[in-house]
Amino acid sequence: MRLLTNSFARQVSVKTFRATYTPVGRNAISVVAGRKSYATVANAPLAEKLKVNGDRLWNDLHYTAHWSAPSPGGLTRLCATDYDKQARDWFRDQVLALGADYKVNATGTQFALIKGEDMSIPPIAMGSHLDSVATGGKFDGPLGVIGGLEVLRSMKEQGIKTRAPLVLINWTNEEGARFFPLLGSSIVYAGQSTVKAAHASLSNDHSGITMGSELARIGYVGDGPNTFEEFPISAHFEIHCEQASDLEKAGKPVGWVEGWQGMTWYSMEFKGEDGHANTYPMAKRKDALLGAAKVITELEKVAFENKGDSTVTNILSGPWGACNIQSNTKLSFCLMNKDGVAQEAMGQAIEKRVKDIAALHGLELEMKRDIHLLPGDFWPEAIDCVKRACGDKGIGSRTGTGHDSTMTTTLVPTAMVFVRAKDGLSHTAKEWSDKDDCTEGALALGKSVLNFDELMRTKAATV
Amino acid sequence: MRLLTNSFARQVSVKTFRATYTPVGRNAISVVAGRKSYATVANAPLAEKLKVNGDRLWNDLHYTAHWSAPSPGGLTRLCATDYDKQARDWFRDQVLALGADYKVNATGTQFALIKGEDMSIPPIAMGSHLDSVATGGKFDGPLGVIGGLEVLRSMKEQGIKTRAPLVLINWTNEEGARFFPLLGSSIVYAGQSTVKAAHASLSNDHSGITMGSELARIGYVGDGPNTFEEFPISAHFEIHCEQASDLEKAGKPVGWVEGWQGMTWYSMEFKGEDGHANTYPMAKRKDALLGAAKVITELEKVAFENKGDSTVTNILSGPWGACNIQSNTKLSFCLMNKDGVAQEAMGQAIEKRVKDIAALHGLELEMKRDIHLLPGDFWPEAIDCVKRACGDKGIGSRTGTGHDSTMTTTLVPTAMVFVRAKDGLSHTAKEWSDKDDCTEGALALGKSVLNFDELMRTKAATV
Repeated sequence: MRLLTNSFARQVSVKTFRATYTPVGRNAISVVAGRKSYATVANAPLAEKLKVNGDRLWNDLHYTAHWSAPSPGGLTRLCATDYDKQARDWFRDQVLALGADYKVNATGTQFALIKGEDMSIPPIAMGSHLDSVATGGKFDGPLGVIGGLEVLRSMKEQGIKTRAPLVLINWTNEEGARFFPLLGSSIVYAGQSTVKAAHASLSNDHSGITMGSELARIGYVGDGPNTFEEFPISAHFEIHCEQASDLEKAGKPVGWVEGWQGMTWYSMEFKGEDGHANTYPMAKRKDALLGAAKVITELEKVAFENKGDSTVTNILSGPWGACNIQSNTKLSFCLMNKDGVAQEAMGQAIEKRVKDIAALHGLELEMKRDIHLLPGDFWPEAIDCVKRACGDKGIGSRTGTGHDSTMTTTLVPTAMVFVRAKDGLSHTAKEWSDKDDCTEGALALGKSVLNFDELMRTKAATV
Repeated sequence: MRLLTNSFARQVSVKTFRATYTPVGRNAISVVAGRKSYATVANAPLAEKLKVNGDRLWNDLHYTAHWSAPSPGGLTRLCATDYDKQARDWFRDQVLALGADYKVNATGTQFALIKGEDMSIPPIAMGSHLDSVATGGKFDGPLGVIGGLEVLRSMKEQGIKTRAPLVLINWTNEEGARFFPLLGSSIVYAGQSTVKAAHASLSNDHSGITMGSELARIGYVGDGPNTFEEFPISAHFEIHCEQASDLEKAGKPVGWVEGWQGMTWYSMEFKGEDGHANTYPMAKRKDALLGAAKVITELEKVAFENKGDSTVTNILSGPWGACNIQSNTKLSFCLMNKDGVAQEAMGQAIEKRVKDIAALHGLELEMKRDIHLLPGDFWPEAIDCVKRACGDKGIGSRTGTGHDSTMTTTLVPTAMVFVRAKDGLSHTAKEWSDKDDCTEGALALGKSVLNFDELMRTKAATV
């Protein structure tokens, strides 16, 4: 592995960066009217020049998908598995071939820094993740990273140089599929968790394996920057398959993502009493699984009552065997809502019902709200860069889930490019975006970056 | 390991046995009035002489319980684990010290044959199991085996010789806790399954481990008799903790078990569709876990509607992680009823509701009724032997679950001795029977065997 010397250390400190960069309209972030005030103007001159190679992008998307546990048509590349190592090694080789300054940080995230005209400016980032869920498709994650790689390759070939440096990031464990919690590395970067906590993230298979030990096993605990403080960026852009049907319905290949719906994750555990499955009368039991089943059915009602969605994503129940009342049951679930008030109401409703069910069945309850994210908007100036990049090929859209961009947006101007997805399917082998749409997505990503670079240049000139 | 020569081969063939033994009233087995016609008479003369050593029994029950995974106050000795091997080795050493002819069969069941006056008669069996459920107590299983051992030891010390030989049996995997199905060896003995099927029984932890491979690992695949055809017995008696509260309410230490309630076991699987936990709308989903939760809540209703009980004993759901709709969920459950008509009604009701839930959520369904046991009665003459043995210290009772005796009763006169249990608790570390009650149980077991031996002698004399 080739590590270029010290280029990461040459970045300006975050303090300097914050002093020099004035975000536009960050305070107005949740006000839709505020966003409207950013007039759509033409793309930056360099953005108008950019082309991308759709064949190369498409080939790499499918080629890299062979680093996967068996999953016909899909992708099963859980974080820090051998398959993940293979995809990471490939990424390293590709960015080194581009002449990037390459680093891996302590949570396994890979950074590929490309020089800009002015190395005193924090780089503009493109990022997503190469690891996947257990039943993943080929697009959720890889399209963002390989799309960013295609932008870098095309810029190099076409001699397009940015004023700010660029950085392509392969974030670790965005999904939380193998290790909980999700956004496993970008949450550390955003200062909302620590390397220590990320390393201690437990495997969802209850084997006791941690993300830290598995990253070490595949050789991906590096000395690169872990936090925004250590390695600030100017902005973050990400392509992602839409995971919904708005673009498909509108007949548009791409979209600018204006914000996200509210999402809350809970984990809970019922403790009841052991007993004989055949002989102990139901009226006397403390059956943890029966209680959990009632929570699951209540979660369906709470979602419908509040015009939201809910999903139980994990259940573990014991003891073992064919002859015991279940005395211990654990659940993980999430609540989604586009409306913040309804999102809060869903949480309050299910918390009350879980407590009522515990009381009815005499169960001990432990319940924890692991993540609580109210609906919010990305940064207006970043959205505007993507909107101009999409032009009339796109529409405005919103994401229903969390991404690494959900973390970077707490720090710097961030927005996303959506690519049309078939039937809104995601996290399944059936996940699909057409080649032309992926090409449009990568092009919009590159143009967004160039638009933001131009925006920073203009602002610097007017200061 | 000392294997006495050929004594097992010297048993009469089952054909000869069946020709010589005329069961009393087997045809009237489900008719309560039929049982009443057996007048209670005095115990056999040898039964009146028998004493047992309650201290020795109590000490061995607690001593052997240390071969267990950590389980404060209880017993976790799953079938074919290292703990199980230790308890089996101890059993072997005890019966060899008594001069028993000792054999292990292909499914790991241990036989200890004690000579009788007439070795042409099939032995009278005492049997139960030393292996336990995951959250077991010290009594369910071990009391039956160690109680039988105490009877053999006391008879030897007191010079009590039976006409028929006796055999003490440690049956393998009665519970089905580690490997499904339950009654794992006695079901083969009764000709309702095969050694091959028993060896293929899969671990309930979904590791793919089988009972056959684990028995081989601990050195308990032997060449002893596997079936009643190979090694017939004349009768089977078993002590067991009551697992209910009838004796406790009646203030009696022991009971004669007249029969069992109906029990049906099902396994089922819902297959739905993969999808993103946050973004895919609930209305379009095929959520296997949501369907399974509704089955669990319906099982509660079906039990109440039919004055029975139901228990879900296992749930396994996937895929893995915090970000996926559950597309595959497996359940195991059982239905219990004292009334055969109501038992059938419960099965029909839940089968219909499971199908309705599958249709509502668009789920593929696989469902199998693994075991279906209608309520039934043990053999009147065997019950009568136990009833006389209990005398005024006992009452009639019924068991709510399956035992190895449930298999032997399909072949030969079988009955059980119940021992008073605290609060009806079983399959929990809180399972408890007092020392004096265990002693009464072992005494009743020994007397029952001697009563049956006398009954066979009388019948042989009158033929």
